[in-house]
Amino acid sequence: GYGRFGIIYNDTAAGDSTDVTSRFRLQIDATAESDAGVTFGARARIQQNNTDNAGSPAGTGINGVRFFARSGGLEVGVGNIFGALEFMPGMYPIDLGLTGLGYDYTAYNFRGDAYSSGGNGAAGSNGVEVMYSAGDLSVHVSASDTSDRIAAHVAYTFSGWTVALGAQDSDNAADTEFAASVGGSIGPANITLAYADNGTAGDHIVLAGRFDVGAATNVEVYVADADMGSDTGYGVDFNHDLGGGTSIRGGVAKRLNGDTRADLGVRFNF
Amino acid sequence: GYGRFGIIYNDTAAGDSTDVTSRFRLQIDATAESDAGVTFGARARIQQNNTDNAGSPAGTGINGVRFFARSGGLEVGVGNIFGALEFMPGMYPIDLGLTGLGYDYTAYNFRGDAYSSGGNGAAGSNGVEVMYSAGDLSVHVSASDTSDRIAAHVAYTFSGWTVALGAQDSDNAADTEFAASVGGSIGPANITLAYADNGTAGDHIVLAGRFDVGAATNVEVYVADADMGSDTGYGVDFNHDLGGGTSIRGGVAKRLNGDTRADLGVRFNF
Amino acid sequence: GYGRFGIIYNDTAAGDSTDVTSRFRLQIDATAESDAGVTFGARARIQQNNTDNAGSPAGTGINGVRFFARSGGLEVGVGNIFGALEFMPGMYPIDLGLTGLGYDYTAYNFRGDAYSSGGNGAAGSNGVEVMYSAGDLSVHVSASDTSDRIAAHVAYTFSGWTVALGAQDSDNAADTEFAASVGGSIGPANITLAYADNGTAGDHIVLAGRFDVGAATNVEVYVADADMGSDTGYGVDFNHDLGGGTSIRGGVAKRLNGDTRADLGVRFNF
Repeated sequence: GYGRFGIIYNDTAAGDSTDVTSRFRLQIDATAESDAGVTFGARARIQQNNTDNAGSPAGTGINGVRFFARSGGLEVGVGNIFGALEFMPGMYPIDLGLTGLGYDYTAYNFRGDAYSSGGNGAAGSNGVEVMYSAGDLSVHVSASDTSDRIAAHVAYTFSGWTVALGAQDSDNAADTEFAASVGGSIGPANITLAYADNGTAGDHIVLAGRFDVGAATNVEVYVADADMGSDTGYGVDFNHDLGGGTSIRGGVAKRLNGDTRADLGVRFNF
Repeated sequence: GYGRFGIIYNDTAAGDSTDVTSRFRLQIDATAESDAGVTFGARARIQQNNTDNAGSPAGTGINGVRFFARSGGLEVGVGNIFGALEFMPGMYPIDLGLTGLGYDYTAYNFRGDAYSSGGNGAAGSNGVEVMYSAGDLSVHVSASDTSDRIAAHVAYTFSGWTVALGAQDSDNAADTEFAASVGGSIGPANITLAYADNGTAGDHIVLAGRFDVGAATNVEVYVADADMGSDTGYGVDFNHDLGGGTSIRGGVAKRLNGDTRADLGVRFNF
Repeated sequence: GYGRFGIIYNDTAAGDSTDVTSRFRLQIDATAESDAGVTFGARARIQQNNTDNAGSPAGTGINGVRFFARSGGLEVGVGNIFGALEFMPGMYPIDLGLTGLGYDYTAYNFRGDAYSSGGNGAAGSNGVEVMYSAGDLSVHVSASDTSDRIAAHVAYTFSGWTVALGAQDSDNAADTEFAASVGGSIGPANITLAYADNGTAGDHIVLAGRFDVGAATNVEVYVADADMGSDTGYGVDFNHDLGGGTSIRGGVAKRLNGDTRADLGVRFNF
């Protein structure tokens, strides 16, 4: 797992605030392997943000559990599934600042099943998914009773570039219907272009890049435009490795809704 | 602990359904031993079923904790106690299918104190128990403030057969009053006959057997009859060991209330 | 962590009761160290008392998490902070009986930020603290949004005696305003005198001592007087080490409110 803590600044229409921000994530991965080489396992997290329960975070238990059976390039998951759109290449092109700063750079905008670190996700809603990869090809199909979602993505990597296409059918008109992304490297930069048709929430398009600027530091930037937001969004951050699994991170983002958010702090893996 | 997941089918008067079923159990056993050889310890579980909280299982914390002091054949327990009827030989003659399929083969029908993997049990209700074993004899007395229960069982094993008698006094007329069981092996079969007088819930009698059918597979069957149920209950399952602590399990049961339940899935120990 | 269980007796104006008492504390300390030697970490606890949630203790999750960065004698903490008054020398001069028996010997009377083993403490309320120690000197400053508290203590040790002064400013008139303590050893005895001005709750003064009476046993005593209590409080206990991290403990206290409380049981560290 990891811990992170620092300062976060929010400037909204209702005023601005500066607060401590923190997250504690204890990850529990439990597995067993059959004689035939099939791995069975479960993943659970105990994750607490200082903002959970309106700032009364104590009492955190495990999230919805994801179970899986895996053999070679094939994996079947049930419960709090990863989700085909959430796991589609290009949906997390960068990891902005200490906290993500609103994740406006995730084009499908969480309008589909996704692994929830603190909640149920599709656990309890018959979440099921199949993931398959062979060489440069990967396929992911997921489904749940949440709005009767069924989603899929296909991704292919050639010459260092990954192209992915995703689609979803659901009973919720505000769910994502279609998504596409392309990402790869140009010199020291890693560039991603992602697009999603988010149903009644309209189009959402993102261009993002990560640049190594020295042996231990990188800078990430994005620009996003979406029908659901009044403004064009953009942001920039830096991550500096302090060694031993520790780093200092910070960034600032102009949100799609016009807010400004900035953070600065440390993260440590354990 | 262990994880298990698979498919469960329920056919009830209200209709039938087929769903994903899963359980995650993380067991925490913490002990220390004094210089004089007394072991002090605590057992807690973080257990999540996909059906917990009406299908919103996230947030699972530890259950009520059981504490104990143990020396030689004597153990004193407090808190979320095991319970003298729950731990009486013959009450879990088999472990049907992936999920237990309703546990109609448990004669005392949970009408007494029992260790709760997800709840309080007698933790917080002054649960106390004393367990003693010497050679072929074992005795178990438990009590709690829940309906002022006090229960006991005595069990004796001779020539491979175990005979057990249990009794309980409580303020709840629907609690078990008396129980008896006999179990042992006949060739490749392990057979148990169990009976309970469950107070106002009437008699409950179970005949169950487990049969090894090959090096890695067994089959279990039961038939149960109880005054509380309109139908005679019966069920059959199989368990096939896949090695490495993993197994595939499935079964089907006709419930005492007339429902039909079936399941199939995998279980892995970690 | 540790476990403890035993018997507790309470005699109050409403009547007397004798009950099982228990606590389970699982402590999770997670750290990482940067190349420059700064340690980043988090502390969380899963702690369950049998009395939690009015005697329905199951469901316990982690408490509010404390995060820290430490280098040499300097430590910065955020979240569920320790608190400058809570951590001031002399505030826990003894550890009475199995359970603390009401902690009337803690002069500041929890009228300030304190690490909460089962709750939020200042997690979610922008809790921040700085601790510094160099040789015989230690300084601790803490603050949170809870009543806009800011508190500090300074402690100095010379010739085996520790003198500490603390003060707090807050929006709560019933919070501690000032505290002082002195503690040290006289032969086999460890003696502490502590005082706090607890605002509208008045003065609170405590004299406490711990005496070794044999290789594995100690006895603790205190007398306390406070404006908030109708009676003078006092208590006595014993702690006997059983080896292997296990001990037997018990005590009796006359509370400041006139109640009598006594306990007896075992504790084991794991």
